[in-house]
Amino acid sequence: MRLGGETTRSIRPRSDGSGFAVLDQTRLPWEVVWTEIKTAAAAAEAIRTMQVRGAPLIGAVAAFGFALAIAADPSDQGLDAAATMLAVTRPTAVNLAWALARVRRAVSPLPHERRAARAWAEAVAIAEEDAAMCEAIGRHGLPLIAEIAKRKGGRVNLLTHCNAGWLATVDWGTATAPIYAAHDAGIDLHVWVDETRPRNQGAALTAFELGAHGVPHTVVADNAGGHLMRRGLVDLVLVGTDRVARNGDVANKIGTYLKALAAADNGVPFWVALPSSTIDWSLPSGDDVPIEERSAGEVTHVTGLGEDGALQRIRVVAPGSGAANPAFDVTPARLVTGLITERGRCAASEAGLRSLYPEAA
Amino acid sequence: MRLGGETTRSIRPRSDGSGFAVLDQTRLPWEVVWTEIKTAAAAAEAIRTMQVRGAPLIGAVAAFGFALAIAADPSDQGLDAAATMLAVTRPTAVNLAWALARVRRAVSPLPHERRAARAWAEAVAIAEEDAAMCEAIGRHGLPLIAEIAKRKGGRVNLLTHCNAGWLATVDWGTATAPIYAAHDAGIDLHVWVDETRPRNQGAALTAFELGAHGVPHTVVADNAGGHLMRRGLVDLVLVGTDRVARNGDVANKIGTYLKALAAADNGVPFWVALPSSTIDWSLPSGDDVPIEERSAGEVTHVTGLGEDGALQRIRVVAPGSGAANPAFDVTPARLVTGLITERGRCAASEAGLRSLYPEAA
Repeated sequence: MRLGGETTRSIRPRSDGSGFAVLDQTRLPWEVVWTEIKTAAAAAEAIRTMQVRGAPLIGAVAAFGFALAIAADPSDQGLDAAATMLAVTRPTAVNLAWALARVRRAVSPLPHERRAARAWAEAVAIAEEDAAMCEAIGRHGLPLIAEIAKRKGGRVNLLTHCNAGWLATVDWGTATAPIYAAHDAGIDLHVWVDETRPRNQGAALTAFELGAHGVPHTVVADNAGGHLMRRGLVDLVLVGTDRVARNGDVANKIGTYLKALAAADNGVPFWVALPSSTIDWSLPSGDDVPIEERSAGEVTHVTGLGEDGALQRIRVVAPGSGAANPAFDVTPARLVTGLITERGRCAASEAGLRSLYPEAA
Repeated sequence: MRLGGETTRSIRPRSDGSGFAVLDQTRLPWEVVWTEIKTAAAAAEAIRTMQVRGAPLIGAVAAFGFALAIAADPSDQGLDAAATMLAVTRPTAVNLAWALARVRRAVSPLPHERRAARAWAEAVAIAEEDAAMCEAIGRHGLPLIAEIAKRKGGRVNLLTHCNAGWLATVDWGTATAPIYAAHDAGIDLHVWVDETRPRNQGAALTAFELGAHGVPHTVVADNAGGHLMRRGLVDLVLVGTDRVARNGDVANKIGTYLKALAAADNGVPFWVALPSSTIDWSLPSGDDVPIEERSAGEVTHVTGLGEDGALQRIRVVAPGSGAANPAFDVTPARLVTGLITERGRCAASEAGLRSLYPEAA
């Protein structure tokens, strides 16, 4: 994607395999700082401190970090130590464990002297495949926007919630991929960006990356989407997801369900973009998704840029009042117009999913 | 209501008619400061600087301020000057103009020397009537909560949006009146308080006043309500309104419509509390309500208490990104279980409204 006038990805491996750079997302949207990573320990630190976030990006960073460790010590004991160090940075991140296992599987059969190059190549492959997957989601989602543009004959208004953008992946993002694809294809579009309380990923990250790429957008309070839809100001809602159940129910950032209800009430198409790794075939329905309850401090306090140019954390809830912070909600499949995956579009149902993934167990 | 262990109203007239005190709401929820007002100019200033807010409270403050002006200069010219000064503080506040006209009507036929006492008595009557009206709303809303408590046999969970509380009225509030009535009647209840971005009236004011009165409550991001309803954690949604159309459509703070959709989707009763002055008989439907677009700065920036104990204003939206800020939305009558007014409960429809207000034109 574009950033500061140049084309980039969220992770930049050096061509000589000596390291890579990541955008420090703890400084976004206020400062664009690339962190150079030359050791596995530095990679682990970047994951732990959330300089990088988003399952696909974390997986890629872990893979490159593992490759750096293997270059330093290709022994089996070295592999064990590095894999453990990287895995504990974010124990619940499935992609992280998956990426480490994949690199390990690739190098284990090899003699020590060939392991480093193979590990680096595997990390590059993981990153390339993620970018290609997101690019494919963009390609399959683009026609939805193009059709609206054609029918309407004017600017297409989209609405998105949270950040399912390129900052969370290696490139393109998931929900944003069709948006970037349509924008790059010359379609006149504009994105309503839900602020996404309590962590403000929309206001901070989605707005930042759309702005960096030159996509017209406007931030709104999470409360505004229903009103915008009633007034005919939204043509399409496009969101990402953390987990899709076998029946097509969609778990995503808290508040997604409310937008899906408003979309259904106003006849606005509601699409969910995802790589197939997000489908949890073992889960019969979204009712079974455990919902993470995060810290109340994320609701009672807000962080942003103070008038003195320094980051400030302020309290916004009355002293003495507590807060609850469910991080995700479940949107029932009946409210989802369809799913966009790297293999194409389908209905949000088991039949729909199986039509694209017949090999799934 | 209770505040700091004592019973109080949001406006405290002195018994000798020499002035009154109001809670400085610009300092809430961080500091409880009563501002003494002894002149009409000070009353106008309190309205203009939003030390007082909420249509009913503004009306009462204007009436008392007018009475203070009349005590200083009871001539017709004095009345003209004072009424103009007070009216321009908030030109769109219907209650303000109404309260001024009412005081004026009461004193105009009288000789100058009797005007001051009459004006003060009229201001007291306006305040008393507002408190009585809200108390009646509480009385008519209480059975809804009592029935749930009886049926459920445990704690009743309510959800409210924005601040339709006693801070916006003289006492009791509108949406909060049934809550206070039920709490004071010993019913075990708990209130989910929507933060209410962008101005955070829920997090700051509703949480403050519920806490001050001792009502158990929890602040949540506006995004959370749908999830809470899906999980069966909300028994009743209770909100106020800025304007009700003749057909029962409800204009209220932005985001209300999304909660009404979630309530309907989950079989949760959704009630709207209002004094009958809020009914706009001239408005056939909510589609005709003009929606105020407020400053983008309310979305891009948040104000709260910094770690140094001073109020800070911070930016939360990515630099260069703009924001839109529709302040209200319209909830269609079909999503409203019913209305609670000072005369009782009714369906959200023209027939329902006319059953309570047969005299309406």
